[in-house]
Formats: sequence, C-alpha cells, structure tokens
Amino acid sequence: MSRLTIALDIMGGDNGPHIIFPAALTALQQTPHLHFIFCGPLNVMSLWLNQQLPNIQARITLSDCPQIVTMDDAPTHALRYKKNSSMRRVLDLVDKNEADACVSGGNTGALICMAYYVLKTLPGIDRPALITLVPTINNGKVYFLDLGANINCDSEVLFQYAVMGSVLAEQISHIKQPRVALLNVGSEDIKGNDQVKQTSRLLTDSQNINYIGYVEGNDIFSQKADVIVTDGFAGNIALKSWEGLVNFAIQEFKKASQHNLWSKIVANIAMPLFRGIYLRMKPDQYNGASLIGLRGIVVKSHGNASSEAFLYAIREAIQQVEMQVPDKIKGKIEAVLMERHE
Amino acid sequence: MSRLTIALDIMGGDNGPHIIFPAALTALQQTPHLHFIFCGPLNVMSLWLNQQLPNIQARITLSDCPQIVTMDDAPTHALRYKKNSSMRRVLDLVDKNEADACVSGGNTGALICMAYYVLKTLPGIDRPALITLVPTINNGKVYFLDLGANINCDSEVLFQYAVMGSVLAEQISHIKQPRVALLNVGSEDIKGNDQVKQTSRLLTDSQNINYIGYVEGNDIFSQKADVIVTDGFAGNIALKSWEGLVNFAIQEFKKASQHNLWSKIVANIAMPLFRGIYLRMKPDQYNGASLIGLRGIVVKSHGNASSEAFLYAIREAIQQVEMQVPDKIKGKIEAVLMERHE
Repeated sequence: MSRLTIALDIMGGDNGPHIIFPAALTALQQTPHLHFIFCGPLNVMSLWLNQQLPNIQARITLSDCPQIVTMDDAPTHALRYKKNSSMRRVLDLVDKNEADACVSGGNTGALICMAYYVLKTLPGIDRPALITLVPTINNGKVYFLDLGANINCDSEVLFQYAVMGSVLAEQISHIKQPRVALLNVGSEDIKGNDQVKQTSRLLTDSQNINYIGYVEGNDIFSQKADVIVTDGFAGNIALKSWEGLVNFAIQEFKKASQHNLWSKIVANIAMPLFRGIYLRMKPDQYNGASLIGLRGIVVKSHGNASSEAFLYAIREAIQQVEMQVPDKIKGKIEAVLMERHE
Repeated sequence: MSRLTIALDIMGGDNGPHIIFPAALTALQQTPHLHFIFCGPLNVMSLWLNQQLPNIQARITLSDCPQIVTMDDAPTHALRYKKNSSMRRVLDLVDKNEADACVSGGNTGALICMAYYVLKTLPGIDRPALITLVPTINNGKVYFLDLGANINCDSEVLFQYAVMGSVLAEQISHIKQPRVALLNVGSEDIKGNDQVKQTSRLLTDSQNINYIGYVEGNDIFSQKADVIVTDGFAGNIALKSWEGLVNFAIQEFKKASQHNLWSKIVANIAMPLFRGIYLRMKPDQYNGASLIGLRGIVVKSHGNASSEAFLYAIREAIQQVEMQVPDKIKGKIEAVLMERHE
C-alpha cells in the first residue's frame, strides 16, 4: 500500500501535545503505511521525537511553526496574522499535496475560516459543512450536519449538505442508499421555513438521494435516518445544548449521590453504568467532526479531546483518504447537477 | 379574594380526562377561590362530576363540546372546522372574559393557531411566543423561548420575546432585573445571523431590559441567564432534541442494566437516583409551556403529561392570572416603545 501522510496540528486543543503524541504513536503502530507531519514548535516536538524508536522517528517529519492559534483568536484575525501557525501549516500541507489529510483540535471558527480560504470548496459546492456522527438507539449512528460552519444556509446549500452527508454515510459507514432527512419543527409537509420547504422539493426531485422527508428534534437519536441535515445555526445550538444537558445530568448525579451515605454507596456502585452512558452521550467530544466540501480532508478533533478521541479523529482522516471522500463528493454533486439539466 | 375561573380542555393531551380530573380536584382543594369550566363531551364530564362532593360540584361548570381536536389535525383545519371543539371553547371563554385563563394539553400547533386567531396579540406584540421554564444547575431555572410558535422571527419579534420573557421572570419567578440573553453560535459580538445581531443592538439600546449578551447552546443549563431568547425554529429543535436525548439515555440505561445479573442488581438499586435526574431533564413535560403575548392567558400542558404535571400547568395559569401577566407585558412593551421615541 502506498504511503499515507497526515499533517497533525500539535498545538490545537486544550490539551495539546500531551494527548496528541500518544494518539499518533498508537496510530503508527496500527497503520503500517502511515506517516505524520507534526506541525508545532520545533523544541516541543523534537524533545518527544528523540525519545522514540528509530522506526517511529523515520515515519514522522517535523514542521516548525512559531505561531499558535489560540481559542480566543477571531477567525479573521487568525487568517490574517497567523500564517505561521501550526493550524495554518497543516492546511497548507494538504493544499500543496504534501499531506493527504490533516487533523486539528484547535479553535473551530479559525479552522473553518482558514480551511475555506486555503483549500477552497469543491466544484458545485458553495460552502463547507461541519459534520459529526451522533450515536442513536440500538447502537446506531446518524450523520448530523451542519454544526455551525455556515449559519445562513439557503436551500441550495442545504441540498449540497444532503449530498455530502449521503456520500459520507455511503463511503465511511458503508450504508447503501442512506436515508437522508431534513430537520424541521414538524413532520408534516406544511411545516418549516422557506429554506427547508424549498430544500425538501429539491431533494424530492433528485433520483440520486434517498430522501425520506422531515424529522423533528426528538427523532435525531431514534435511528429514523442515516443523515440529518440542518442549517449551521440550529445545528450548532442543538449540538452544544446536548453537551450542556449531559453536563447538567452529571451535576445532578453528583448532587443526588451526596444526599446521604446510602446514595453515596449507590452512586459508587452505579458509576460504571453511568460512565458508559455518559461517553455515548457526548458524540462530538468522542467522535470529532469533519469539515467537508473542501478540496482536501480536514478532521476537527474536539478541543477537549482525550488521547483516545484524538486517535479516533486520526482514524477518521485515514478512512476519508482511503475512500477518497472529496472525489466521491465531487462525483456525486456532478451527477446530481447533471440530473437537473436533463 | 375574588373568584378565579379557569377553563380546562378536558379532551386535550394523550391521556385526556383520566389525568385531568384528579389534577383539577387537587387544585380546587389547594385554592379556595378557584372555579373551573370543564370543556368536553357532556357525558364524560357529568359521569365524573356526579361522583364528587356537592361543594366540589358547585365550583365546576360544564360546557358541552361535541368536537375534539386530534393530535393529527392540521392547525388550519382545526381552526376552520373545529369551532365546537373543547380546545376552541376554552379560548372562546377567555376571549369573552368568562374565564380568566385556560389550560390545554392538546395539539400544540392547533392551539397556537386558534389562540392567535381568537385572542389576538397585545398592542405592540407582533407574534405570540411559547415559553417554558428549563431547569439549570444548582436548582436554578431559566425561561426559554420561543419553542416553535413562530419560526420566522425578525429582530423586532425577537426583541419583543426578550421583553415578554423578562416580564415572566419578574412577575412569576420574582427575579429583579432578570438577566436576558440571546442564544447564538458563539459569544463574540461578530457571531450570529443578521436577525440575532440586529436584536442584540436593540436590546443593548434598551434601558428597560437587563441584556447580558449572547449565550451558546451549552450555556442553557448553566444558570448564566434568567431568560434565553431564540427563534422558534432553533428553539423547537433544541427542546425536542433534549427529549430525544433523555429518551436515548433511558434506553442506554435499560440496555446496560440487562448486561448481566450484577448490572441488573446495580440498575435496580440506582433506579431512584436515575428517576430523580430523569424528571428534572424533561422540563417541558413537567412544566408545560405558556403561550404569551396574547390578550388572554393560555397555558399548554405537555400532551403526555401526568396528573402532577397537569396540576403544575393549572398552577401556572393561576399565577399568571394573579400577577396579571398580559397587563404587565402590555405595560412593559409600552415603556420600551416610549423609550425608543424619546
């Protein structure tokens, strides 16, 4: 198998190199043809690399980046003034075909803004989307987009999102004719705003998309669809509110468990049960997200990701390279646009 | 204290009279000056009423309604063809001042549509909003609106929602200068769509609202604000997705507890702990919602409400009557509009 190169933003995320190095090491052990380009401050990276075995050292290239995009940087500020940052470098490497994909856990807004500027969208795609896999009942999963890459989505953009989500479900999750739904405030035809209604008509008319109609907020976790499309405003608010709700549940659990000695004992016994559920409830933290619709592969790990979650993001990048996701999206959108002109 | 009359839609909700009668009985016992007008099929109501004590019978009037608005009725269909339904009757009674408020657990879309038509909005209010109390950490609560009464909200409507939410927090929850926030995809000034940015400017300019800026989805449960305003599209999707997430958690709990004998035992012991958290996680099911901005008081109990939850909705209606919420909203919106012309 030919060499597969992924550029890693070593300084992205709250936990930085500390969690990224171990994840990279595991990925190298699991995938023999994998190579990394680490982007970050040279001293931090070489200190770690010098301690590794020679066969590992041979599979990692270091790219010195004196600048760091912080979580507080405004996207436009990062774009203009942080051209030597680790985040920008990973995107430049993908743009120059020196890396097949990149992974960053840094400032999401800055990453979207920079990636859009550096990599540009694929032909036929107006805007990139941020997509994640959300767990559902019965061990299922649903692709959910947009998580906030684009808050003003017209029907054409929402339609393109449906196409892209469908490609990911087909290529990465190997679902034949994935069921695509639009998120709406009701399941009847008359419901929804103009963008949603117009998108529904576009999707109904397309032979290339297995469109199943509207779903509501409570259907997201119910396995009714394989892909759920919404605009970045509602999508971002929904996703972040789940994180808030899960944190709230944790607080309630802690509070309830402090009630008396018996509740303390019960809480301790029940903790593993809770923990398993908790981990499944925080989809983006665990799965990360992908920025799709661009001419290159960009995977966004959660800012607060663990080493395990960062490894998951690396694996996602590998899969997207192997399945040639950007090419597949390009092909599908071409087919859909052709269909319209017939 | 003068007589307080509430009209109850006996046929609203999935559980109907079965849960509504006991709730009404408790409310009568708790509130001496309370009277009810029951609206529904006469035979069902009189069968129950004949079994009650005379002093209870004296405080309930029956209003025979041969029609029922079903959960599947399109709002416009209900408005046009169900003029003799229990849902329509309770609104007509409020409109004719024969009742001080009404409570229904029926089809939300139909209720909003009918209430808007029958009661009309207050002067200065363009659209009604559906509002609920969402629990937060540290036993707090936040007023959250709009839950879907109006999916196309311009900045003027969102501003009016902020005013109305603020009045409810002041009058019902007795919070002085309630902190009002706008739900957005980021907390920085540059974030958000045009409506949100424009609303933020209107709120910043108003001396009558204690506006604290943007909050994100994960802040909803964190007690950062007393009132959180968003459009009905994002608000409805967020609220319903919480219901979906909580149901998903329950499924996961059930699944985890079936894993082996030990997990079965643990799950059984931990059940009361779980149940308490679960109940706090389903805010609208427990608290119901209010339709505000109209010339009358309309409280919406959850369709699947328990008797306890329906009682809560009745109490909410009583409080809104006692605090004269519509008058207070009218007063506040007048003050705010005056301020603009100064």
